[in-house]
Amino acid sequence: MSTIPHPDFSAERFARSPEARFEPAPADGVLPEGFFTTTNLPTYVRVGGRWRMPREPRMDGALVLSADGELWVREGRRVRQGEQVAMGQAEDGTEGIYVHASWMASGAEGEFKFMTSEVSREKPVDYARMARLLVEERERGGYPVWVTGPALVHSRARADMTWFVSNGFVGGLLAGNAVAVHDIEASIFGTTLGMSGAGEATTGGHGLHMRAINRVRAAGSIAKAVEQGVVRDGIMHACVLHRVPFVLTGSIRDDGPLPEVVTDNLAAQEAMRSHTKKATLVVMIATALHAIATGNMLPSFVTEADGSLRELTTICVDSSEFVVNKLKDRGTHQAFGVVTNAQDFLHILRLYVERELASRGKAGG
Amino acid sequence: MSTIPHPDFSAERFARSPEARFEPAPADGVLPEGFFTTTNLPTYVRVGGRWRMPREPRMDGALVLSADGELWVREGRRVRQGEQVAMGQAEDGTEGIYVHASWMASGAEGEFKFMTSEVSREKPVDYARMARLLVEERERGGYPVWVTGPALVHSRARADMTWFVSNGFVGGLLAGNAVAVHDIEASIFGTTLGMSGAGEATTGGHGLHMRAINRVRAAGSIAKAVEQGVVRDGIMHACVLHRVPFVLTGSIRDDGPLPEVVTDNLAAQEAMRSHTKKATLVVMIATALHAIATGNMLPSFVTEADGSLRELTTICVDSSEFVVNKLKDRGTHQAFGVVTNAQDFLHILRLYVERELASRGKAGG
Amino acid sequence: MSTIPHPDFSAERFARSPEARFEPAPADGVLPEGFFTTTNLPTYVRVGGRWRMPREPRMDGALVLSADGELWVREGRRVRQGEQVAMGQAEDGTEGIYVHASWMASGAEGEFKFMTSEVSREKPVDYARMARLLVEERERGGYPVWVTGPALVHSRARADMTWFVSNGFVGGLLAGNAVAVHDIEASIFGTTLGMSGAGEATTGGHGLHMRAINRVRAAGSIAKAVEQGVVRDGIMHACVLHRVPFVLTGSIRDDGPLPEVVTDNLAAQEAMRSHTKKATLVVMIATALHAIATGNMLPSFVTEADGSLRELTTICVDSSEFVVNKLKDRGTHQAFGVVTNAQDFLHILRLYVERELASRGKAGG
Amino acid sequence: MSTIPHPDFSAERFARSPEARFEPAPADGVLPEGFFTTTNLPTYVRVGGRWRMPREPRMDGALVLSADGELWVREGRRVRQGEQVAMGQAEDGTEGIYVHASWMASGAEGEFKFMTSEVSREKPVDYARMARLLVEERERGGYPVWVTGPALVHSRARADMTWFVSNGFVGGLLAGNAVAVHDIEASIFGTTLGMSGAGEATTGGHGLHMRAINRVRAAGSIAKAVEQGVVRDGIMHACVLHRVPFVLTGSIRDDGPLPEVVTDNLAAQEAMRSHTKKATLVVMIATALHAIATGNMLPSFVTEADGSLRELTTICVDSSEFVVNKLKDRGTHQAFGVVTNAQDFLHILRLYVERELASRGKAGG
Repeated sequence: MSTIPHPDFSAERFARSPEARFEPAPADGVLPEGFFTTTNLPTYVRVGGRWRMPREPRMDGALVLSADGELWVREGRRVRQGEQVAMGQAEDGTEGIYVHASWMASGAEGEFKFMTSEVSREKPVDYARMARLLVEERERGGYPVWVTGPALVHSRARADMTWFVSNGFVGGLLAGNAVAVHDIEASIFGTTLGMSGAGEATTGGHGLHMRAINRVRAAGSIAKAVEQGVVRDGIMHACVLHRVPFVLTGSIRDDGPLPEVVTDNLAAQEAMRSHTKKATLVVMIATALHAIATGNMLPSFVTEADGSLRELTTICVDSSEFVVNKLKDRGTHQAFGVVTNAQDFLHILRLYVERELASRGKAGG
Repeated sequence: MSTIPHPDFSAERFARSPEARFEPAPADGVLPEGFFTTTNLPTYVRVGGRWRMPREPRMDGALVLSADGELWVREGRRVRQGEQVAMGQAEDGTEGIYVHASWMASGAEGEFKFMTSEVSREKPVDYARMARLLVEERERGGYPVWVTGPALVHSRARADMTWFVSNGFVGGLLAGNAVAVHDIEASIFGTTLGMSGAGEATTGGHGLHMRAINRVRAAGSIAKAVEQGVVRDGIMHACVLHRVPFVLTGSIRDDGPLPEVVTDNLAAQEAMRSHTKKATLVVMIATALHAIATGNMLPSFVTEADGSLRELTTICVDSSEFVVNKLKDRGTHQAFGVVTNAQDFLHILRLYVERELASRGKAGG
Repeated sequence: MSTIPHPDFSAERFARSPEARFEPAPADGVLPEGFFTTTNLPTYVRVGGRWRMPREPRMDGALVLSADGELWVREGRRVRQGEQVAMGQAEDGTEGIYVHASWMASGAEGEFKFMTSEVSREKPVDYARMARLLVEERERGGYPVWVTGPALVHSRARADMTWFVSNGFVGGLLAGNAVAVHDIEASIFGTTLGMSGAGEATTGGHGLHMRAINRVRAAGSIAKAVEQGVVRDGIMHACVLHRVPFVLTGSIRDDGPLPEVVTDNLAAQEAMRSHTKKATLVVMIATALHAIATGNMLPSFVTEADGSLRELTTICVDSSEFVVNKLKDRGTHQAFGVVTNAQDFLHILRLYVERELASRGKAGG
Repeated sequence: MSTIPHPDFSAERFARSPEARFEPAPADGVLPEGFFTTTNLPTYVRVGGRWRMPREPRMDGALVLSADGELWVREGRRVRQGEQVAMGQAEDGTEGIYVHASWMASGAEGEFKFMTSEVSREKPVDYARMARLLVEERERGGYPVWVTGPALVHSRARADMTWFVSNGFVGGLLAGNAVAVHDIEASIFGTTLGMSGAGEATTGGHGLHMRAINRVRAAGSIAKAVEQGVVRDGIMHACVLHRVPFVLTGSIRDDGPLPEVVTDNLAAQEAMRSHTKKATLVVMIATALHAIATGNMLPSFVTEADGSLRELTTICVDSSEFVVNKLKDRGTHQAFGVVTNAQDFLHILRLYVERELASRGKAGG
C-alpha cells in the first residue's frame, strides 16, 4: 500500500496562493454558478491562512464551509440555501484550492480527468477525419494498405469494400483465405458460410463454401475464375479487374485453400512485408491475427522522399476494445482504435468519403 | 459421456435408399461438381447394399472410395485425379448417404448447419427491414417505445436521435438521468463528461456535467430550462418541443439528479409501465439496465384492436452479444439482437428511414 | 411482423380443463403460497367457463381477479390483502391456466424459461465433472488432445499446465509458436513478452522473447535445448521429458520461429490431424485460431473398439462467450463452453483433479 | 498527420556516443548472443561517425550491416552466417544505437515496451498479494467494503462469499436486490433464476425467485426470515448471523423487492456513503452499476489516524476489461483490475487467504 506524502506547502509555488473564495447557495439543492467541483484526490483548501482537507471527500461534490468552521464535501442536492460554497475552477492552488494529483500513476496523467482510456466504445468516431486522410492519400499517390478479416464479407460490407477497391483507395490488400472464400461464395451462391444475406442459416448451406473453393481450384486461380466468368463481382473480382495487388495468407483453419493462398507462413510474411514496407496508411478491419501480424512488420513512421518522418496513421477497427489494446500491447502503439461493427464502419466511411470527394468537386470514381 | 445409438437401418424410411453414387475426380485436388460435403456427424454411406461409416471423419471433406474398397473422408486438396468421390446433397439417405443428426442437443436443431447462434456480430444487420417497420408504425399511429443508454449521447449519435424524436418516430422515451445529463452538457458546453466531440478529455472538463445539472436545477426543470433558453438543442429539447413523453428513472450512479428524474424505483417502474403497456414496437439501444428492466415489463405480443395477436418486435442494439443474450436469458425471448456501436447504428438507421420515406414520397418530417 | 393465432380451445386437450382456482392475498404486498407466476407469453385463464386473457400482461406478476370481474396481471407488491390471486404451477391448462408458447421460435423451445443460452459467464462451471472425465480418460488409456493459446503461459498457468503434461493427462498438445516461445522465455528469463510474473512491463523486456528464440535456434531444436540445459522447466520441457507429442503450427504472427514449428499450413493441418483422429477428449484453452482449426478436423463422436459411438467431449475455455459461440457457428456443436480466465481455470481444474485422485486413492502422479 | 522531428544529434548527450558494435552471425538464421533487437520506432545507428537509419524498419528484427555498407533491419531467420549484426541493449545511444521514442504519445510512455495496457486478461493475477491485504485489514481492524453483483450467486461462488462474510473479511456489503434474491432462492429452492447448480434451466423454474421473494415478504424482513428458519444458509444468512451490515439498493430491474431494499436512489446513496466513507479497502465483483456508483463516492485515498494518507486499494473484478476501464474513465483511477470469472476468482482468493492464515498460524475463522 503506497503512502501519499502531503504536498510541501512551504514551497514557493504556494506562497502567493490566496484564500479560497466562498459564495452562498442561491436555493436549496442549487449551487452558485462557478462553484468548485471536487475530485476523489486529496484536496486542500486555504481557509484562515491554513491548507485544510475537507471531510467526506468524493468526486462530483461541492466544498461547503459550515457555520462552525468545518469544511465538507457535499453533493449539490444536500446543500441548503445560504450555505457557503467554494468557488473556482483552478486545481493548482491559484484560487485557494489545491488538488494533489502528482502522486498518481500514469493512468491519470497527473490531472483528474474522465474518459482517459485510449480505446473505448464510448468514444466518438471521427469519420470525417478518416475520410479526409483516405482522399488525401489517393491524391498524393500514397500506398494505403488494407488488412481485413472475414467478418467484413459475412456482414455484407462486401459491396462497400468492393467500392473502395474499385475507386483507388486500396494500395494493397492483405487478407486470409477466408476473406476470398466468403467473397467468392457470395458471388457464386449469394451466401456466406451458407448464411443468407438476411442472416439465416440455410439448409444444405454448410457445403457452399466448399463448392465455391472447388470451382476456383478447377479454374486454376482466382484470376482465371474471374476471366472465365465463374466469379462475377465482389472484392476479389475488383482486385483482379483494377489490378490491386493482394496477398492471401494461409492459416491452419483454412478450407481448400484457394490457389493464390501462400500456405507457408514464412513466405507469407515475406509477401506481406513487400507491401508493409511501402505503406503510407494502414487500415485494419475485423481481424486480430492479420492486424497483429501486420503490426509486427510495420514501422511506426513513414519516411518521406525528403528524409523527413511522420507518424504512420494506423486505424484498427474491431467490435471490441480487446483487439486494439492487444495490438498496442504487442508494440503497435501508434494504432488508433475504432470500436464498432465492420459492416457499419465501412458503410459510413464510404458515405463520408463520397461527401469529401463531392466537396472537392471530385467524382466518386 | 452420452452414447449415440446407431440408426435403425431396418426402418422403412431406409428401405428404398439407393446405393451412393460416385464419380471420378477430374484433376488432382479438384472434386467433381456436385460432390457430397461431409459434416462432423456420424455418416453412413450405402455401398454394396450395406450402410458403412467412412474412416477419419471430419467436416468439409469429400467421401472417397479407394481402390481396395475402403471409404475415407478426405480434404479436397488430397484427392487425386480419377479417385471415386461420392455425389449428392441429400443427408437423409435418399441419395445413399445418411447423416445421423437426430441425437444432437437442440443447439444444432437436428441438422448440421453453420451460423446457428441467434446473436452474433458476424451476422448482417437488416437496416432496410427496421426502417420499414419504423415508418409503418408511424403511419398507423403505433406507439414505439425507445429505451436508450448514455453511450448514445457520448458518441455523437445525439443529432440522429434528436431527428428521430423530432420526426414522429418516438412514442415514448425511457432513459436514465445520465442520458439527459450528457445531452444537456452537450447543449450547454459542447462536451460529454468533459470529452470533446473528437473524443479528447479536456482540462477542467470533469466538472462540466455538474455545472449543467446545476443550471437545470436552478431553472426548476428540464422543460423550464428549455423555455428559458438554457437548453437550446438536442434530445431532451426535442422531447419538450414535440411533446414526446419521457421517463427519466434514477439509479445509484446518478449525479444530481435532474429535476424530472423519478428517484424511487417502484414509482419509476410504474412510470415506465405506463408506456410499456401501450408499446407496439420497442427499440433498446446501448443499455443493459434499462433494456432488461423494460423487458421485465413487456409482453412478448401486441393485442390488436380486433383481439388478434402479433409478436411485439423488440430490437436490442449493443456493442456485445452479451446484453442481448442476457435479455433473452431473463425471458425476453422475442428480442432481436443487433451487435454494433450505437452511434453507427443510429446514423445508418436514419439514412434508411429517410430512403424509405423518399421511396414512399414522404417528407423527412 | 408475425401474427400469433389464438389456441384452438375446442381441441380435446382443453375439454377437461378445470376453472382456475383463486385464493385471497394474506396481507398487502404478500401473495398466497402457491400463487401462479406469469410469463410474457399470451396467457388464458379459465373463469366462468371461458378462456380469458388478463390485462397488462408481463412476466413475474400474479393474476388477480378484481371485484368487478376483470382479470389483471399485477406485481406482488401492488396486491392488497384479500384480493383474489390465481393459484397453481401448471402452464398447460390442467389447472385452468394456459400459457401459449408453441408459436415461439426455437430459442425458447416452446416453454418459458430463464437462462436458456448455451454459453454464458453467468452459468456455473462444473469442475468436478471435468476432473472426473480427465481422470477416467487417463485410467482407460484414452487420448486427450489439448489445444492451447499463449494466454495460458502469459498468465502464469504455466506451472499448472506443466503438471497436467507431467502427470499423464495430455495425450497430445496442439499449439502455436507463441506458446512455446513464451514458455521458453519464462524458463530462461522469468518473463513473458518482457512482462514480469507480477504483470509489470520491464525495461528492455521487449527483446527477451527474441533472445529466447535465438538460443533455441542456436541449440538446433527444443529437444536439444532441453538436453543442453538451456531450457530447464515448463511446458515444453515436460513434453520432451515425458515424451508427450506436440505439434507447433506456424502463423503469420510468428517471431522466429522455433525450429520444431511446422511453417507450412497444409503440412501443419496434416500433423494436427494425426492427433485429432485419435482424440477421445478435447480441451481447448484460450485460443480462437487453434480451437476452430481443431474443431474443423474433429468428428463430433468417438468410435469405440466395439463399433459403438459416443459423443466426443469437447471443452472450450475462453474469457468471452464469443469464441465458444463461434466454434459452434463453425459446426463444432458438441463444444461445451467455459467462460473464464485461463489461469484460473487451470488452477482450479488441477485442484479438482488432485482431489478426484485422492478420493480414488491415487497419487498425484 | 504529425511529423516527427529527427533528434538533434549535435546535443551534448550524443557527443560521447561510441560507434555501434557489430559481430558476425555464428550460423545461418542464428544471431550472436547479445544482439540488438529492433523496435518499430525511428532508430539511428552510429557507423563511421554518422547516425544512420536502417532500411526496412520493423520490430523484433536485428540490425545487419551488409558488405556494401548498407544498414538493414532483418528477421533473425534471414541472417546468413558471418553477416555483421549490431550488438547491445541500450536504446539511448550509449552503445551507438539510438531509438527515438520521446515524440510518442503517452500510451507508450516514451519507451518501447510490450504489455503496457493497464487492464488485460493476458496479465497474471496476484492472488497472494490480495490475500495478504485482506488478512492484514482484518488484523488491524480495517473496514473492507465489498460491492457485489448477482453473477456471484448465480455461478456458485455463493459458498465462498459466505465464508468471507462469516470469517471477518467483510466490513460492509453493498449490493442490489438481485444478489439477495438469488442467494435466498438458492437457500430455499437450490436454484438461481430457476437454473440448477449444474447450469441447467429447470421446468417451472422461472417462478422460483418470485416465490422466494414472497416468503421473505411474508416473514417481514430478511432478518426475520433467517430467524424463522425460512432462510437457512448463504450470504444474507451469514450477514444476519455475524452482524455484518449490508445495504441493498434498488433498481428499476428489481422484482419484489425484498423488504430491506432501499427503493429510493437518493436514500440508497446516503446508505452506501455511510459505508464508503469508512472504507479502508474496496473489493468490487461482477457489477458495473454498483462498482461505478461506489467509485463515485469513494476518495482515492485513506486518511490514517495520524493524518497521513495512503492510496485506497480498490480491486475490481469483472469478466471483461470494459467495466474496469469504464470505472477508470469515470474517475476511479486507483482501481486495480482483475479480468476473470467471479466464481473462479472467489474460489482461488479463498484458497490463498486460507494459506496466508495458515502461514501466520491463524485459524480459518
